[in-house]
Amino acid sequence: MSQIKLISRASRVLSVSGAAVRTELSGTVLQSQGNHTSIRTMASDQKKALTLETMNPHVKKLQYAVRGPLVIRAAELEKEIEKGAQKPFKRVIKANIGDAHAMGQKPITFIRQVVACVSDPTLLECDLYPSDVKERAKGILAACAGQSVGAYTMSHGIELIRRHVAEYIEQRDGHKANWQDICLSGGASGGIKNCLQLLCNHKIDGKDTAVLIPIPQYPLYSASLAEYGLEQVGYYLDEDHNWALDINELERAFTDGSKTHAVRAIVVINPGNPTGQVLTRSNIEDIIKFAQKHSLFVFADEVYQDNVYDKDSKFYSFKKVMTEMGAPYNKVELASFMSISKGYVGECGLRGAWMELCNLDPEVQAHLYKAISAMLCSTTLGQTAVDCVVKPPKPGEPSYELWHKEKTAILDSLKKRAQMIATFNTMDGFSCNVVQGAMYAFPRIQLSPKAIEAAAAAKKLPDVFYAFKLLEETGICVVPGSGFGQRPGTYHFRTTILPQPQQLQDMLDVFRGFHQKFTKEYS
Amino acid sequence: MSQIKLISRASRVLSVSGAAVRTELSGTVLQSQGNHTSIRTMASDQKKALTLETMNPHVKKLQYAVRGPLVIRAAELEKEIEKGAQKPFKRVIKANIGDAHAMGQKPITFIRQVVACVSDPTLLECDLYPSDVKERAKGILAACAGQSVGAYTMSHGIELIRRHVAEYIEQRDGHKANWQDICLSGGASGGIKNCLQLLCNHKIDGKDTAVLIPIPQYPLYSASLAEYGLEQVGYYLDEDHNWALDINELERAFTDGSKTHAVRAIVVINPGNPTGQVLTRSNIEDIIKFAQKHSLFVFADEVYQDNVYDKDSKFYSFKKVMTEMGAPYNKVELASFMSISKGYVGECGLRGAWMELCNLDPEVQAHLYKAISAMLCSTTLGQTAVDCVVKPPKPGEPSYELWHKEKTAILDSLKKRAQMIATFNTMDGFSCNVVQGAMYAFPRIQLSPKAIEAAAAAKKLPDVFYAFKLLEETGICVVPGSGFGQRPGTYHFRTTILPQPQQLQDMLDVFRGFHQKFTKEYS
Repeated sequence: MSQIKLISRASRVLSVSGAAVRTELSGTVLQSQGNHTSIRTMASDQKKALTLETMNPHVKKLQYAVRGPLVIRAAELEKEIEKGAQKPFKRVIKANIGDAHAMGQKPITFIRQVVACVSDPTLLECDLYPSDVKERAKGILAACAGQSVGAYTMSHGIELIRRHVAEYIEQRDGHKANWQDICLSGGASGGIKNCLQLLCNHKIDGKDTAVLIPIPQYPLYSASLAEYGLEQVGYYLDEDHNWALDINELERAFTDGSKTHAVRAIVVINPGNPTGQVLTRSNIEDIIKFAQKHSLFVFADEVYQDNVYDKDSKFYSFKKVMTEMGAPYNKVELASFMSISKGYVGECGLRGAWMELCNLDPEVQAHLYKAISAMLCSTTLGQTAVDCVVKPPKPGEPSYELWHKEKTAILDSLKKRAQMIATFNTMDGFSCNVVQGAMYAFPRIQLSPKAIEAAAAAKKLPDVFYAFKLLEETGICVVPGSGFGQRPGTYHFRTTILPQPQQLQDMLDVFRGFHQKFTKEYS
Repeated sequence: MSQIKLISRASRVLSVSGAAVRTELSGTVLQSQGNHTSIRTMASDQKKALTLETMNPHVKKLQYAVRGPLVIRAAELEKEIEKGAQKPFKRVIKANIGDAHAMGQKPITFIRQVVACVSDPTLLECDLYPSDVKERAKGILAACAGQSVGAYTMSHGIELIRRHVAEYIEQRDGHKANWQDICLSGGASGGIKNCLQLLCNHKIDGKDTAVLIPIPQYPLYSASLAEYGLEQVGYYLDEDHNWALDINELERAFTDGSKTHAVRAIVVINPGNPTGQVLTRSNIEDIIKFAQKHSLFVFADEVYQDNVYDKDSKFYSFKKVMTEMGAPYNKVELASFMSISKGYVGECGLRGAWMELCNLDPEVQAHLYKAISAMLCSTTLGQTAVDCVVKPPKPGEPSYELWHKEKTAILDSLKKRAQMIATFNTMDGFSCNVVQGAMYAFPRIQLSPKAIEAAAAAKKLPDVFYAFKLLEETGICVVPGSGFGQRPGTYHFRTTILPQPQQLQDMLDVFRGFHQKFTKEYS
């Protein structure tokens, strides 16, 4: 009862993950698991409209490990160090999230100059910026209502920019793209969620809807499915074959899932997150045949399409492959997602993205656009950055040389770092597939029975236990494999390849030392 | 059958509203109502995963009149005029949406300079901008990971800016605000939806959840409730008393709604949208007592808090009133919403907003923050603009004079336009309450029985019929009252007060003429 009184009025919940909730009062951290009722009832005298018992259970269930308890702890550690606390490390390395600028990558000058110009059009009258920057800014301003980026745009984005996106896709694929099927959004996540939501609240032959997602997967998918009350059916990627996608496994997952649910969509992430593989063209063909056979809606998460490092790998869009396969495959329903947060640009904070919709029932698409309209529009400055990405400076234009130099340097450096990741394979206790693309590695770690016991005693999953130890002892913040899904009995973590080369090298060295120590401790 | 073939492959749905879907092929516009199956089946040979029958029925139901069919038609008219079509008017006046910059309002220089500076930090090294602009930009960049606005921020926003928001609220209310209870978002709509979603998927004593919303209301609420499968229970605002909020009517609505549903929250929009009234302090006290009595979660939509024009009106925040009422009223659960899209700023396109959460169960709040984290973060440049709004230049600082001049000029002009709206009351067939605040008027129109019959023959609601006629004949685009809700048998429309003064005067004159003509036609 004394504890209950302690956290009553002034209590502040710091983090929450499933059933584990941490509350803090004047530096006292209490850990509670389950038993929420007792905590809740004393939070206030007022009978609450919203409590743990009466809130949306889907939101309770939702988990997003990329920003979960480990990351919250990492932020706390940073604050402690700022305040002078002594730790066994000098700084926290946030290898948990694909956030290139946070890890020292510099922005592309052309993009930032155009964004500055549309923000303050008086810059158009100075001699500060090259003429192509000014022309671009003028074009975008002319496409804004009232010539101001302060005006709302159409809900699916500025028409001019949607047309430029379509042109970009046509050049990429060699096939027609309709600008009306392009929908801009403030980050790919928003578009993905809007499309997933179309699948909710309808039973097929009495069965609820399920969606096929890869395991491991990017947890936006599991989080959104939980939020929308959709069932996830996992298909395992093949770790023994560089995380390839095996059609037999897809069929197995579909058959299993169909016993209890109506499986109506499939998510494919290519290049892979967290796994870093790049699908071959024939693999994509097989997936499309599979989707066509079972009338599945395809979510093609292609946000890493510019991040291909392996000399034998090449990015093929689902749209391109599908189009070239001809009927009936070119009629599969597809939403393809792309973002300026990734690629060589890494402009996560500007929130620019788009989706291309193919073969949607026109009325369904109209309802989707209508639903989006209640949110008014995505940010004009993010849309502006999208325009710069899909229509970069051309050879001969004043900004071309610098743009090309910056782009090449970033992609070369990412390629180098992707290769450095192979170092994991020289270290006892780790094995790691080739990072062919994207921004992540998903190394497998061997954990001893004693480590697994210690984790159980600490009421943590083994990989979570490992990642917390790693964070507290080395300052390296990665995301445990369980946040993405992994085969039972295997343990992994996701690390980005985004620390700058020297820092990445240091990080790999620290890993080697930590794992040796950890193994010794639990041997 | 010929029609069905016509729209088969190449069909493109232009707009959709409830059961009415318009499709277009080579300029032929077909209107279909109901009977979707026949349209759907011919859309493609591939069996679709998503059709009108199998898509989320909640999304189908959702309606958002502010960007509905009328507005889509207005955009078409603009394109037709651009291409040289002869119309009885020279340009379309979009009085349908609170989009100040689109209607000619100029941005606040200080905001745009700071946004330009953080976008392109080389501007910090030029002599172009005042020192306080540069200082502000430096402070924000220092608060960004990697000192770049291209990095993700924490999901609820940059801590520095959340602290500035809290300070702003403290100054406004004279009471403490916790920065941890401030959550930034890309527009108020996002925050509102995130909070509403907490109420879903839970039955209380076997009853589904309902939310009290004003009638008329801003249709984001009806749209979001439909989307989330929540029931709306309307309480009528009192048109005869300048749209005041009558507590007896609240009790009536609560009692009625409670027969079939668990009424768990109330939405209050103050200053009112679309109605323009400003609640008195005692009215707010009554609402808080009502909410406390019935354990309701209060959604205080206060995005127009800076838009008060009437000399006898004053904005009081729910937070302030509640705090000053003391126990038990100061424990009511409250989410208050504010946006930079409104006020004197009107930066709709930058997508900056925040909510303040008061008295939430700490664990519920943690789950809310966790759910938001899957969307990563709102735009850094929108957050930057929020910082400028909550912490504007102070007297003595280099940007103060210009900022003050710009702000005053905009608010004075809005006030003048709010007063001009009274002209409606000098015109036959119109009556309109005083626009005390916000950006809208909601005039009532008299429609003759013949007009109502003609509307029925055209399969339109009377006010929709009127608004379409108005648009086609005068180019003025307003939103029919049915999009917001109105007492049965009454007809209204919402117009913004945002056309610049001369244009607003012209618009009022055109209204007078149109209504006379319309009345004569249907007398």
